[in-house]
Amino acid sequence: CALEDPFLELDLSDSGLTPADLESRSAAFSAAFEAMAALEDGALANQDEERMVGHYWLRAPALAPSDHISEEILATMESIGDFCGQVHRGTVKSPEGSIFKRVILVGIGGSALGPMLLADCFASRDRAMSLRVFDNTDPAGIDRHLAEHGSLGDTLILVISKSGGTPETRNGMLELKAACEREGLAFAGRAVAVTGESSDLDQRALNEGWLRSFPMWDWVGGRTSIFSAVGLLPAGLIGLDLRALLAGAAAMDSCTRQRDLTRNPAAMMAAFWHREGHGKGERHAVVLPYKDSLLLFSRYLQQLVMESLGKRLDRQGNEVFQGLTVLGNKGSTDQHAYVQQLRDGLHDFFVIFVRVLEGREGEDLEVEPGVTSADYLNGFYLGTRKALAEGGRHSVTINVDRVDERSFAALLALFERAVGLYAELIDVNAYHQPGVEAGKRAAKAALDLQGQVLGCLGKAGKTADEIAAELNAERGLVWEILRHLAANRGDVQGAGVGGVEGLRFGRS
Amino acid sequence: CALEDPFLELDLSDSGLTPADLESRSAAFSAAFEAMAALEDGALANQDEERMVGHYWLRAPALAPSDHISEEILATMESIGDFCGQVHRGTVKSPEGSIFKRVILVGIGGSALGPMLLADCFASRDRAMSLRVFDNTDPAGIDRHLAEHGSLGDTLILVISKSGGTPETRNGMLELKAACEREGLAFAGRAVAVTGESSDLDQRALNEGWLRSFPMWDWVGGRTSIFSAVGLLPAGLIGLDLRALLAGAAAMDSCTRQRDLTRNPAAMMAAFWHREGHGKGERHAVVLPYKDSLLLFSRYLQQLVMESLGKRLDRQGNEVFQGLTVLGNKGSTDQHAYVQQLRDGLHDFFVIFVRVLEGREGEDLEVEPGVTSADYLNGFYLGTRKALAEGGRHSVTINVDRVDERSFAALLALFERAVGLYAELIDVNAYHQPGVEAGKRAAKAALDLQGQVLGCLGKAGKTADEIAAELNAERGLVWEILRHLAANRGDVQGAGVGGVEGLRFGRS
Repeated sequence: CALEDPFLELDLSDSGLTPADLESRSAAFSAAFEAMAALEDGALANQDEERMVGHYWLRAPALAPSDHISEEILATMESIGDFCGQVHRGTVKSPEGSIFKRVILVGIGGSALGPMLLADCFASRDRAMSLRVFDNTDPAGIDRHLAEHGSLGDTLILVISKSGGTPETRNGMLELKAACEREGLAFAGRAVAVTGESSDLDQRALNEGWLRSFPMWDWVGGRTSIFSAVGLLPAGLIGLDLRALLAGAAAMDSCTRQRDLTRNPAAMMAAFWHREGHGKGERHAVVLPYKDSLLLFSRYLQQLVMESLGKRLDRQGNEVFQGLTVLGNKGSTDQHAYVQQLRDGLHDFFVIFVRVLEGREGEDLEVEPGVTSADYLNGFYLGTRKALAEGGRHSVTINVDRVDERSFAALLALFERAVGLYAELIDVNAYHQPGVEAGKRAAKAALDLQGQVLGCLGKAGKTADEIAAELNAERGLVWEILRHLAANRGDVQGAGVGGVEGLRFGRS
Repeated sequence: CALEDPFLELDLSDSGLTPADLESRSAAFSAAFEAMAALEDGALANQDEERMVGHYWLRAPALAPSDHISEEILATMESIGDFCGQVHRGTVKSPEGSIFKRVILVGIGGSALGPMLLADCFASRDRAMSLRVFDNTDPAGIDRHLAEHGSLGDTLILVISKSGGTPETRNGMLELKAACEREGLAFAGRAVAVTGESSDLDQRALNEGWLRSFPMWDWVGGRTSIFSAVGLLPAGLIGLDLRALLAGAAAMDSCTRQRDLTRNPAAMMAAFWHREGHGKGERHAVVLPYKDSLLLFSRYLQQLVMESLGKRLDRQGNEVFQGLTVLGNKGSTDQHAYVQQLRDGLHDFFVIFVRVLEGREGEDLEVEPGVTSADYLNGFYLGTRKALAEGGRHSVTINVDRVDERSFAALLALFERAVGLYAELIDVNAYHQPGVEAGKRAAKAALDLQGQVLGCLGKAGKTADEIAAELNAERGLVWEILRHLAANRGDVQGAGVGGVEGLRFGRS
């Protein structure tokens, strides 16, 4: 089961999949292919949010359901290429007249993991610019980034948020803005937004006169946004070949539209997952690339797979508590860690090996007569695969020639389609994330309560119990907020004896 | 359930643990405490390998079962401190007379993850030296490291292998040696070994005249070696306070020897794991620190927990296929990824939150009136914890004031003890790794077969089938070796038509 150009082969010899497994799923797959075709034709496949699901159009704009969308995609691609060229040539400079040499990206989730994966995967190249990613609202993490980075004078700042209102990203941006001001540097003139039209972030970019703003569309989900401006803009800035990325993904898309299951690696992958976990995610996926440059691939897939499939309700509204857990780092390194459990312990997983045939570019070194480091890497992969198979643990292997833009993009597109097909088999909406939205609301509620707690703190100390009663709030939550405040604000103190009950908090 | 100094509190309010859960396990815990006491007294607790298990002595040398061991520990600690001081002061210089400013560590598994975690966790400090880790036999990964690192002139090289024969580490060392030679730099005069006495590596260091060699002992396992020279030497070189590290671990060790379960955070942690997974690892552990500097903590725990508990046999020789799967990155970042599945999907996990009360050092920035980035981080943690609890998903939270040497070490020691106690509850040997050893042998077999395949390749092409028949070897393995060779050696070619069957491989 293979794509010829770029070469990507799915080896299913140790998967345990039988013709009967495929036969029993053939009707479900027929329906899945119909649904995927409708999705690609512009159906509102993300039903709950009444949105189209269009990430496949990004690499084949002619397939988009309207000329307007095709043109928007093409115009955005072109403007990204133009902008990157202007930055590289120095036509676009910092407000202080410096050439931009480095990029800081502020984003989280779908707006960070794709760019991080791209940058890490191709870090060995002589890159046009370096990329650093702020992906959290941890102030100590931000301080560390700023200290490591040094002056922001040569730095272009990308702020990426589809909704334009993600607090972590907003906070990272404000922290960077403050850092620019401390250095006497202009912020707006080095800032670029990637966001939905008319979002808060878009408005801010317009009002403050940012360098540029690139669009995000509501028909591209965050976790599948790597081939939109979210991934292509940072990829272009660090110097990757954007056309090759898009071509690699498009080639895999063509391959994975084939309805003959045995010729479609995404369908075979989905069938493998479905059989291993009985359609309920009963076994988790261990992703094990034998290549350092793919270290972050499992983390990227963790997001793509678990955020897409981890759902309480199916599309009929039944409680199904679905999902498919993903973990992994890299081989052979992991063989000296948790692979002990895979070989000998719990049978609650299957493995997806990724193997890169080419060991290194350029001349090789013999570590023993006739043997190279790459031979060892291959030997470790072969040995582990064989041992797992002998122990009745199933695996598939994805073989690629080398990791370049085309094969890398094909690899991502393979999993996007596999997730889409698998979601059809288990009848969940793979394109919304109600839990993530609920998490944002829960955090907002905690912050609102913090405001109330601060408001009722006075010079006279009060216990958590007293404050909770006063605010009619949950005692445990009030306690956790109080100790956070006492640890972080000079004007909030906790004092007393006897643990939670006795401790009184006050404000100076 | 808390340690006072350094402060570390295990909050079990959302753990679902009841007094009845503890009561029903009290006899098992009594036996576990007896076993741990015997282990600390020098019993051959790693029965299969007939070894003592002494990582607890490293932070309390007086507890070691013999004066000889106590003295060895103390002498090694002292010599590590002296050596680091000499490097920092420039008394120990490179063979070419340069001050050492950077460290490259070559190791894998237990000889890499601890130092990587230490270096990453304390990266925000002004460090005496920087640390880079070669942890694989991927030649492309090594090339990338070398390109990023630049000249090795200011670089001290640590080679860490307990057995002294780990191929990945040996290969990384040879690649670095070749890189030194290409630069005209001496290798031996900048190389330091950490290894078992009289190992291959120890012999090499002696024969080649390396700068130093520090001992590893057979009573310290790789995954618990962070407080031996494996972790302390790199920690000292980058400038951490070694005494504070040891003191933090020792404080937690004292705390977790208490037989009153409710006062012992390691016992409560083990009880929580045991109840959640019914003593069979039926739920995996998601480790979610809300602090960027602890990003690698889950990967470190993945090794510690899964390599210790993932076992086929219990100590009576029954097949039990045990284990406990660990995954996670960091909050709130992960809330924009797989936490969707935790909140809404499969109930196959529990969560271990790590919360750091102090947001940042120094002055804070308001991102909204009266609200900081740290308030958001805390709000996201509180919201997620609450939502999980409401959905019947259990969690515990580890609260620490800040991440410094003492609290960091206490955190590690907490999990070492929890793993030890849990292993007693399920009756497995937590201190061997038969699967890892078997993996090394399997790779060796694959490399031997590669040699045979190379030996029988001639100018006339042969198919994989023919070679497999000639060597009486497995056809699939021969095929995978042939395509690896063809991708990596100029003198091995594959040509033909018809896929696997028709392709003929030859040697020029």
